[in-house]
Amino acid sequence: MIYITRRERFNAAHKLSRVDWSEEKNAAIFGKCSNKNWHGHNYELFVTVKGEINPETGFVIDLKELKNIIRQYVTEPLDHRNINLDVPFMQAKMASTEVLAVSIFEQLKMPIEQKGIQLHSVKLCETENNFVEYFGQYQSK
Amino acid sequence: MIYITRRERFNAAHKLSRVDWSEEKNAAIFGKCSNKNWHGHNYELFVTVKGEINPETGFVIDLKELKNIIRQYVTEPLDHRNINLDVPFMQAKMASTEVLAVSIFEQLKMPIEQKGIQLHSVKLCETENNFVEYFGQYQSK
Amino acid sequence: MIYITRRERFNAAHKLSRVDWSEEKNAAIFGKCSNKNWHGHNYELFVTVKGEINPETGFVIDLKELKNIIRQYVTEPLDHRNINLDVPFMQAKMASTEVLAVSIFEQLKMPIEQKGIQLHSVKLCETENNFVEYFGQYQSK
Amino acid sequence: MIYITRRERFNAAHKLSRVDWSEEKNAAIFGKCSNKNWHGHNYELFVTVKGEINPETGFVIDLKELKNIIRQYVTEPLDHRNINLDVPFMQAKMASTEVLAVSIFEQLKMPIEQKGIQLHSVKLCETENNFVEYFGQYQSK
Amino acid sequence: MIYITRRERFNAAHKLSRVDWSEEKNAAIFGKCSNKNWHGHNYELFVTVKGEINPETGFVIDLKELKNIIRQYVTEPLDHRNINLDVPFMQAKMASTEVLAVSIFEQLKMPIEQKGIQLHSVKLCETENNFVEYFGQYQSK
Amino acid sequence: MIYITRRERFNAAHKLSRVDWSEEKNAAIFGKCSNKNWHGHNYELFVTVKGEINPETGFVIDLKELKNIIRQYVTEPLDHRNINLDVPFMQAKMASTEVLAVSIFEQLKMPIEQKGIQLHSVKLCETENNFVEYFGQYQSK
Repeated sequence: MIYITRRERFNAAHKLSRVDWSEEKNAAIFGKCSNKNWHGHNYELFVTVKGEINPETGFVIDLKELKNIIRQYVTEPLDHRNINLDVPFMQAKMASTEVLAVSIFEQLKMPIEQKGIQLHSVKLCETENNFVEYFGQYQSK
Repeated sequence: MIYITRRERFNAAHKLSRVDWSEEKNAAIFGKCSNKNWHGHNYELFVTVKGEINPETGFVIDLKELKNIIRQYVTEPLDHRNINLDVPFMQAKMASTEVLAVSIFEQLKMPIEQKGIQLHSVKLCETENNFVEYFGQYQSK
Repeated sequence: MIYITRRERFNAAHKLSRVDWSEEKNAAIFGKCSNKNWHGHNYELFVTVKGEINPETGFVIDLKELKNIIRQYVTEPLDHRNINLDVPFMQAKMASTEVLAVSIFEQLKMPIEQKGIQLHSVKLCETENNFVEYFGQYQSK
Repeated sequence: MIYITRRERFNAAHKLSRVDWSEEKNAAIFGKCSNKNWHGHNYELFVTVKGEINPETGFVIDLKELKNIIRQYVTEPLDHRNINLDVPFMQAKMASTEVLAVSIFEQLKMPIEQKGIQLHSVKLCETENNFVEYFGQYQSK
Repeated sequence: MIYITRRERFNAAHKLSRVDWSEEKNAAIFGKCSNKNWHGHNYELFVTVKGEINPETGFVIDLKELKNIIRQYVTEPLDHRNINLDVPFMQAKMASTEVLAVSIFEQLKMPIEQKGIQLHSVKLCETENNFVEYFGQYQSK
Repeated sequence: MIYITRRERFNAAHKLSRVDWSEEKNAAIFGKCSNKNWHGHNYELFVTVKGEINPETGFVIDLKELKNIIRQYVTEPLDHRNINLDVPFMQAKMASTEVLAVSIFEQLKMPIEQKGIQLHSVKLCETENNFVEYFGQYQSK
């Protein structure tokens, strides 16, 4: 078993706020992240897959294929978008880094497993100081 | 003459589009940067000042003072904001990295010079692949 | 279970030497790290916590709270200090990266668990070439 | 148990191609990585070992010893070399990042374990966008 | 006048050696960089242009156009290539970082100036420890 | 004229304080940088030289020679030292980044010019947020 990771990036707007809360409560809980006119980030995404090495190619997976899957299912829908408004797989969800990381994992799981390898983890960096890692529902780190 | 630089960061939403252009023309010129629901970035800002070293302290300027000036005049108004909608000094301007860098330079020039030193340049990084440098109207690099 | 990490930084002086050893033995074992007049580092600290996502906020923990805990219990006592002389929780300990990482983990464990989440790991980088990770006494990576 | 990691770097040439395949098939499978005149990378290698802290020194291992082992067994044979042609431990193997990471792990395992500690993992970065991690044959992440 | 910089990357093989020198002399002057079977690097290239801001778009130049010029004239011919053997504009030249930076500047000068802006400088990083900057024949930094 | 830069690093302890000032005045002016038991940093140093390319080698200077000069005159005396107490060329000077950068420039100027090239600048980074650049007494940036 060997682990291989591909980094992709996307730039998106979002805000943290609940429509069922007052502006005051949103500000109290989410601080400046609740600014009603949005703010945004350069997100860095690290997708780790695992599998056996194919002895013919020396590859676990051709990284071009992994890159294409990430772009089709994750970064195309997210890049230069508003996470709250524009992204089908984030509808009716909180646009936190945690929820976004889980949603990205769920977007990627099936297309990656159709290639015969396993999705190990998603690491999503919101700033140089904050990141989230998700390993799927039944896996521990 | 010696040059000292302070890095500060801010996270903001923006878009590139003109209200006097059709959606089609905006998309043709600005591409995905014109997405009507905004996108955003982690901006990195490097402010460079120059002056003589104070022999008593060994400082050109106390960096805490420089940091406070940058925060008051630039990053407080920009951080977790929408550059097009929320930022007084960007009203009625294009929210490009170039225009933002010039505007930040103009915000900083007077308060920095009131400290008895010169503002040399502003470097503004939008992504890891793109940045702008501005040295003021009559200065060459 | 999801993992979220906060980076904080501190700048500190230290040395590696034992008072019960001669200067020669300290130099033989610890090399230039034993310089009697100290040296120092820009330490980078990554604190990883794990828990379930609160469906109301989308958060495992409000990162402002995590940041405040790290600052109160770790970086305030360490930043711009001498690790051997000034830091209560490092008294009578070797000031190695390994021992410091374990001590930081122990400083953080209780206040983080009082928030209802688990401290997963501490990663402490001494230079760009060296770092230590600690997962607590009974956990494996 | 605590984990300590040392980064080392090396610059090497390689190509991905099989002599038992036609140039066309190599190009179809390996793309531009199959260029017959080679290309190259600045590889970053992170070697993680684990063990107990020696109470006398505060060390798991003296990092100078770990650095010397990595240099002798890995970076000396690889640095400024052609991975396909010049490196004894890569003879008759595919020069992929996956195979190279496994081979580096195998090079390091015995000399590190002779120091009384365990080799936990090897992380090998080929570019800022791609890296591989290997934890040995029977270990899971 | 404002300066805007685009970063692009390429991975290439090269060696430093002269065919009119013996292997011994090449080794004495160029050290391990003269290895006859090549070595390689992940090169980072920063191209800086300067001009006035177009008041209609807020741009000095559309960065997509700058990116396309760099890719067509520089990174396509260099990426995943052997600098000594495969690159038309490096024929019969030393493959040093200095000569490569000057050659890249010369490749870019005309196509960039045809866009109505000036090429200010090229910065070429060979490793994290070494880089070269070139400003053209008659410009000083 | 072409510019080539070498990065070197050193880890050192220092403090900002004047013996002719009270502890209170030192604390008021220098804040936590005046901590009497020292603190420290991982300094990053970028030394830029300029000259013509030697057509025989493709080099402005052999970087091994530049590295050796920097190590002999700057990083050997500074690395794992106390800047205030241990470093001959910092005696009786303030240990600020500004003064240290100027002193490093003066240390390097003669040995570099004896190689037939010019020392262009010294850039000294104290943290990821602060750096100083010095171009010599009569040069402007």
